[in-house]
Amino acid sequence: MSLAVTDALLDGERIALRAEEGVIVELGPDVQPRPEDEHVDAAGAILTPPLLNGHTHAAMTLFRGFGDDLPLMRWLEEKIWPIERRLQPEDVYWGTRLACLEMVRSGTTRFWDMYWHPEAAARAVRDAGLRATVAAPLIDVDGRAQDMREAALRSLDAVAGADERIEAGLAPHAIYTVTEPSLRWIAEVASERGIPIQIHLSETEQEVADCLAAQGQRPAHYLDRVGLLTPRTVLAHGVWLDEEELELIAARGAVIVTNPVANLKLAVGRVFPYVRARTSGIQVGLGTDGPGSNNSLDLFADMKVFALLQKHEARDSAAVTAPETWELATGRRAPLLGAAHGVEVGQPADFLLLRTGMPELSFGELPAALVYAASGAVVHTTVVAGRVLMRGGEIEGAEEVLARALERARRLGLALPR
Amino acid sequence: MSLAVTDALLDGERIALRAEEGVIVELGPDVQPRPEDEHVDAAGAILTPPLLNGHTHAAMTLFRGFGDDLPLMRWLEEKIWPIERRLQPEDVYWGTRLACLEMVRSGTTRFWDMYWHPEAAARAVRDAGLRATVAAPLIDVDGRAQDMREAALRSLDAVAGADERIEAGLAPHAIYTVTEPSLRWIAEVASERGIPIQIHLSETEQEVADCLAAQGQRPAHYLDRVGLLTPRTVLAHGVWLDEEELELIAARGAVIVTNPVANLKLAVGRVFPYVRARTSGIQVGLGTDGPGSNNSLDLFADMKVFALLQKHEARDSAAVTAPETWELATGRRAPLLGAAHGVEVGQPADFLLLRTGMPELSFGELPAALVYAASGAVVHTTVVAGRVLMRGGEIEGAEEVLARALERARRLGLALPR
Repeated sequence: MSLAVTDALLDGERIALRAEEGVIVELGPDVQPRPEDEHVDAAGAILTPPLLNGHTHAAMTLFRGFGDDLPLMRWLEEKIWPIERRLQPEDVYWGTRLACLEMVRSGTTRFWDMYWHPEAAARAVRDAGLRATVAAPLIDVDGRAQDMREAALRSLDAVAGADERIEAGLAPHAIYTVTEPSLRWIAEVASERGIPIQIHLSETEQEVADCLAAQGQRPAHYLDRVGLLTPRTVLAHGVWLDEEELELIAARGAVIVTNPVANLKLAVGRVFPYVRARTSGIQVGLGTDGPGSNNSLDLFADMKVFALLQKHEARDSAAVTAPETWELATGRRAPLLGAAHGVEVGQPADFLLLRTGMPELSFGELPAALVYAASGAVVHTTVVAGRVLMRGGEIEGAEEVLARALERARRLGLALPR
Repeated sequence: MSLAVTDALLDGERIALRAEEGVIVELGPDVQPRPEDEHVDAAGAILTPPLLNGHTHAAMTLFRGFGDDLPLMRWLEEKIWPIERRLQPEDVYWGTRLACLEMVRSGTTRFWDMYWHPEAAARAVRDAGLRATVAAPLIDVDGRAQDMREAALRSLDAVAGADERIEAGLAPHAIYTVTEPSLRWIAEVASERGIPIQIHLSETEQEVADCLAAQGQRPAHYLDRVGLLTPRTVLAHGVWLDEEELELIAARGAVIVTNPVANLKLAVGRVFPYVRARTSGIQVGLGTDGPGSNNSLDLFADMKVFALLQKHEARDSAAVTAPETWELATGRRAPLLGAAHGVEVGQPADFLLLRTGMPELSFGELPAALVYAASGAVVHTTVVAGRVLMRGGEIEGAEEVLARALERARRLGLALPR
């Protein structure tokens, strides 16, 4: 399988490229397509790296708009948890397929997923053609530590075998939902196997207060104590981290994924201290969080909210720039998240072509246009591993995916608009 | 000129409607198109009222992405003002045409504009087919009060004559850029002619401090003293208003238009106290502010930021709901802003048809889907005064508008991405 893209604009230069076996093999002004190539004439479209969603619960597309505007605990207890108890693998499969469709459409090609039935999510990612790190949320405060551990190991095997584009991870849900012995066990398994960890950390003030009361330490220090703060650890949120915790996270080389839209929507009460984290040299990525608490998977929107919220928080309109935000959203500031190094020979053939003739991309400097003016609707073509997943806004099988996801939502008894 | 729309979904019911002379004349399940009607088969699309942008500087589309991430005063002094000194009416005409195009595309059909060469802006609104209240920013702290007054009267006449869909207003730029005698003169003219006033008020903390120092009063009280706080007054921003000022504004019946995205981007340091304003019973609308400081005219994005930011500020995820936000963005909570009363017989035929088959609109309750999940890309068809301005995402003459706007930007010496 080989692909040629001609007449694209990369960093202001007209280029063409060829990809073989999912990797860029030629790139430059004079590259010619070969007869065997699938050929995409970019017609002057801007070529960019794709976006990377560092934290989501993809299958929750099915729950979108269900019980919005409720306080967090009422939303979980009255709306989400009762339905999740009835959740089947096929629900997760089609919910994740729908999430993949929305991500492809809005330019995201790799994501970090934490949700039930991870083997079904992995199948969905494989069938949709994206890249992902997939993990089940691990919870054992219900006293079922042994069950949790067995399920964790089973899901690792199931996910790891799904596809080469899919990485298996372990996802202790949070320090308040996993017991200390199990956290230590997870740290050992992850260390032995060299696999990544995802965990929600310091999302609410309550979590910090409870951790201080129970452990005599703040969340990041406690996580370090149980061996889970490592260069393979991805921390979602980090809203309530203090300066010492940020220094510790920097020293350990862990990544923080900030989810500004979900944090605002759930009113967690504080803004992730990004400027301070940057000063500490922490790797940072951007996430949407689940579509149940965002409710969109369009990272273009979240990029803008991230930059604006940080400017506001710093009371300085220059505190965070568009180029920096673009780097964050494309995974360039957190190597662990697994983005390609760039659109270069030898790198995975993962990239976007943006629509020409969009007013949003026609004025000013490009990173500013992408971050402040654009939405995911500017994405015309999405390529992962040399495979064209969307062309001209069209994704093969999109109607079936939506229809099947709606079927699953109906089966779960979710109210639909019509 | 008559229009028939069939097979649309309005509040969950299948309906059809007919419009004559810009007004809805029939609406119901059994309405039939007539031979003379322009006929739009909605094919099951959702029909909604359009959005209303309560505060913008439309022609600043040309300046979008130019000098982003600079501190406010450097942006104005180094980037914007030097170019504005070279601004010609044709720049404003094509910049406004481009803004209209972007608004039609993302479902906004009425806006409040404050920018130079208002007669050119009014022509652009007329030619684009939208509705607007148009006013030039009035400034006389340079000592040229007489010139300002003459220009104000000339622009009133020029704008008022442009089209029946266009309303002329007066727009004293701010209390710190217009002298007290001129503010009083504007109040008199507005009162005599019964025309609306737009003014930036209480956007920055500095403005409040300066007003207290110069006038011994906070901005809203000062505005009231000079006769400009009336039921015809639209206040943009209101970020730094205190409780007494909110009570006064409520008592006077003035409208506040909040511009959350621009406030964050310019890091004005505080969030508009919406929940408090709601308690006071103030009419509130939503604005994007100019595309130079947002940088988008897609109000769907700003709706979401508004609701989320207010939830965050209140530390309560239930503080502001999706239905309430939708009312705000469609102008339902501020009659002065001039939205139609609704999609009803006897009302202007202004409405949107939203794309079917969009995952964003397929799950959960409709207002939540519109506010939290959708972007302007869900808009399929835009109708103003019974005239179809966009159909299937296509706007007649869109390419020419973008090309001419780019020409004007080049003439002004603005850097373009390629």
